[in-house]
Amino acid sequence: MQKLISEIKKLNIKTLDKKEDIYPYAFDTAPLKDKITPPLCVCFPKSIEDVQKLVNFARENGLNIVPRGAATCHTSGCKPNEKSIVLHMSLMDKIIDINKEDLTIKVQPYVTIKKIQEETAKLGLFFPPDPSNLAVSTAGGAVALSSGGPRTFKYGTTKDYVINLKVVLATGEILETGSNVAKNVTGYNLTQLFVGSEGTLGVVCEITFKLIPAPEKRLVTLCYFDTLKEAAQGVNNVINALIVPSTLDLLDKNTLTTIEKYNPTGLLCDKEAALLIEIDGSDAKIKEDNEKLYAVLQKSNATKIIQSENEEENEKIWKARRSSYAAVTKLKPNVATEDVVVNRSKIVPLIEGIQGICKKYNLTVCIMGHAGDGNIHPNFALDLSDKDEMERFEKAKEELFRLAVNLGGSLSGEHGIGSEKKPYLEFALKPEAIKYMELIKKLFDPDNIMNPNKMF
Amino acid sequence: MQKLISEIKKLNIKTLDKKEDIYPYAFDTAPLKDKITPPLCVCFPKSIEDVQKLVNFARENGLNIVPRGAATCHTSGCKPNEKSIVLHMSLMDKIIDINKEDLTIKVQPYVTIKKIQEETAKLGLFFPPDPSNLAVSTAGGAVALSSGGPRTFKYGTTKDYVINLKVVLATGEILETGSNVAKNVTGYNLTQLFVGSEGTLGVVCEITFKLIPAPEKRLVTLCYFDTLKEAAQGVNNVINALIVPSTLDLLDKNTLTTIEKYNPTGLLCDKEAALLIEIDGSDAKIKEDNEKLYAVLQKSNATKIIQSENEEENEKIWKARRSSYAAVTKLKPNVATEDVVVNRSKIVPLIEGIQGICKKYNLTVCIMGHAGDGNIHPNFALDLSDKDEMERFEKAKEELFRLAVNLGGSLSGEHGIGSEKKPYLEFALKPEAIKYMELIKKLFDPDNIMNPNKMF
Repeated sequence: MQKLISEIKKLNIKTLDKKEDIYPYAFDTAPLKDKITPPLCVCFPKSIEDVQKLVNFARENGLNIVPRGAATCHTSGCKPNEKSIVLHMSLMDKIIDINKEDLTIKVQPYVTIKKIQEETAKLGLFFPPDPSNLAVSTAGGAVALSSGGPRTFKYGTTKDYVINLKVVLATGEILETGSNVAKNVTGYNLTQLFVGSEGTLGVVCEITFKLIPAPEKRLVTLCYFDTLKEAAQGVNNVINALIVPSTLDLLDKNTLTTIEKYNPTGLLCDKEAALLIEIDGSDAKIKEDNEKLYAVLQKSNATKIIQSENEEENEKIWKARRSSYAAVTKLKPNVATEDVVVNRSKIVPLIEGIQGICKKYNLTVCIMGHAGDGNIHPNFALDLSDKDEMERFEKAKEELFRLAVNLGGSLSGEHGIGSEKKPYLEFALKPEAIKYMELIKKLFDPDNIMNPNKMF
Repeated sequence: MQKLISEIKKLNIKTLDKKEDIYPYAFDTAPLKDKITPPLCVCFPKSIEDVQKLVNFARENGLNIVPRGAATCHTSGCKPNEKSIVLHMSLMDKIIDINKEDLTIKVQPYVTIKKIQEETAKLGLFFPPDPSNLAVSTAGGAVALSSGGPRTFKYGTTKDYVINLKVVLATGEILETGSNVAKNVTGYNLTQLFVGSEGTLGVVCEITFKLIPAPEKRLVTLCYFDTLKEAAQGVNNVINALIVPSTLDLLDKNTLTTIEKYNPTGLLCDKEAALLIEIDGSDAKIKEDNEKLYAVLQKSNATKIIQSENEEENEKIWKARRSSYAAVTKLKPNVATEDVVVNRSKIVPLIEGIQGICKKYNLTVCIMGHAGDGNIHPNFALDLSDKDEMERFEKAKEELFRLAVNLGGSLSGEHGIGSEKKPYLEFALKPEAIKYMELIKKLFDPDNIMNPNKMF
């Protein structure tokens, strides 16, 4: 192995290989269960040619490639093994071009979502995907998982904004998956085959996103309900009233209590559930939508309705909401964020089911999620060193996935499969779907060198 | 062959095989150039099981399958050969389910787009794709080509609404490509691989579309410009003002004159170009957008701005716009509708280029298109029996495609490739992209029995 590392070093690409340097690249934010296996080395390519060199080297030497962004992934999606060259993309962090007329932005993979949002906002433009860790989450990671966030009900996820990718394949070839026009049916949609493929088909080196004009303003509403059912019914009532909020998130009592405990902002902790609703658009549009919204929420038995008066108050409510994950980490040493999706009409049985499972296995869970999309995140507070608890958690997890699938839903709305959910893929997909996905993997990566052991 | 037909008839599926019956199934709306080759027979499956039987029969007997909807396709996308079983999907025309709460509709492939629009509208919901022939165009056809229409600037094309497909593959297997939840990253995006694949990967038998709440109202503006450049600049000014019209269509002088000649509605024929702009939303939203829009158009030197006062006037303007194709058919016996796409900033060089090409080859062309998307449709008035003209047209077509690609664009925004544009695919796609598309085709259809000779 030492020989291989010296060969890699000759490629003239920054490389780390000391144990203490490469250790942090052995995991992402998924709970650590197995023994930690650092990669062979970590390389920092500066260009698509560097990526080609490393891919060619890996293929020719029986190694594999694990691309890595900010590693905020919850599914061990960038977990290496001892034969991995981790491609840390941090030196490919440039915005290549923003075109206001064509409403596009072309970036290298390590540009953060926050940077994209900020730079496009300066031109009055908008990149809607909004993962919680947007300050560090990268464009490449968002493409790998089709990241969403709280605005997907109105605006869709990352996949809805990717129009072209430049990818280094396992062969070392460079594939351009689409073109730089948003409307295009010239051949098969290779672009969408790569979006959400978690680095298993190739290394994404350049991304063209389409943009949209930015909404002028937003208004955030936080409202509470005495029962979960009423909150879920509230979600449906809003949609039935044909209002299209950008955000329609739900937080359960445990989530409210936990956030308030560690970051007091005045959340009401005696309520079973809250909805966080953001509407956006022009002044007139917001005024009009809000009149409808307020009436619907009152009719839906919201017990308290709080609305932001200005951008500062918007941010205060959002800060509380965004801290939900961090807050849970303070309940116990560790937290496992899960991600399941059902149709909107199945949110109540899903959440009640999750509560039942957690009661059965004596687990602490804070449930929140993007109710408008049916995308629910149960955050489990855990102690990884408590073997018994971890065993109970594994059982609960399996039941959770079965529950979502039995309700007509699926395993992931925005966090992906990685290696964590690999064993459960067959719950959600029929054998034919898995078979053809595996054949596609084999077609692009016959030697299984691209982020192996993820998904399949 | 007669023996094969008797075997097919034993499958207990309605089958046509008389020459006079099957002749109309030999072509779509693309100009007829070659000798007309009717298929072996035309079958009318009633169920997914019927489709399986026919696919299995074709595979086992060296035949091929050509699925067919309303055949409004302009690219010979459903052109059979003498070994084809045409699958006319007209008996699979049911809406299976509309779910207002989940905002989804599940349909069989022969349901028309108009029917989907009407049935969802009854619930206050909206299916935006809007091909010109929506009264006959089918859901299956829209999926095969990712059909768009004039509303794509704001709402996207069919691909943005397909969340799940049930497909019969060449093996006879049934593949469910996704799930019935809109937000989903569980495995590769097989759904989008099939959307736009023109029946070359399998027969789509069931489609789940997502829906959105319907906009309450619309307002149509027709405005004229003395030069094409000013019209194109007008398009960009609208977008730079961060207005998002549902439609932003451009019509050139020839198109205006031709429509007015055959369907007089008072279009101004002394102007070089017109823009047809539709904004939609609530009363307040329309009022607000329209104030901005009107000011932008005035500043952009629009010489006349006509706005609809009510839904009747909206329809009148739209009727004129929708008749553009039909009108061109009256200039000469035939019409070839082309479909190229560039970035918005390249519309002027594209249109001027098209005009130059047509002058060079002495061809009559009416240019219109969805300028907001950079998607331009030159309608060529032709006489198929005029050999010399057809030769000039073939040369012009090749130059047109080269022009679009040289401007950074692509071969098709919404009509697809079929067999007409197959020879030009390499203009738009790099060899690697074509190679992997062909490998995907081979993976799903090793014997090339699914709509052969299309795309590749």
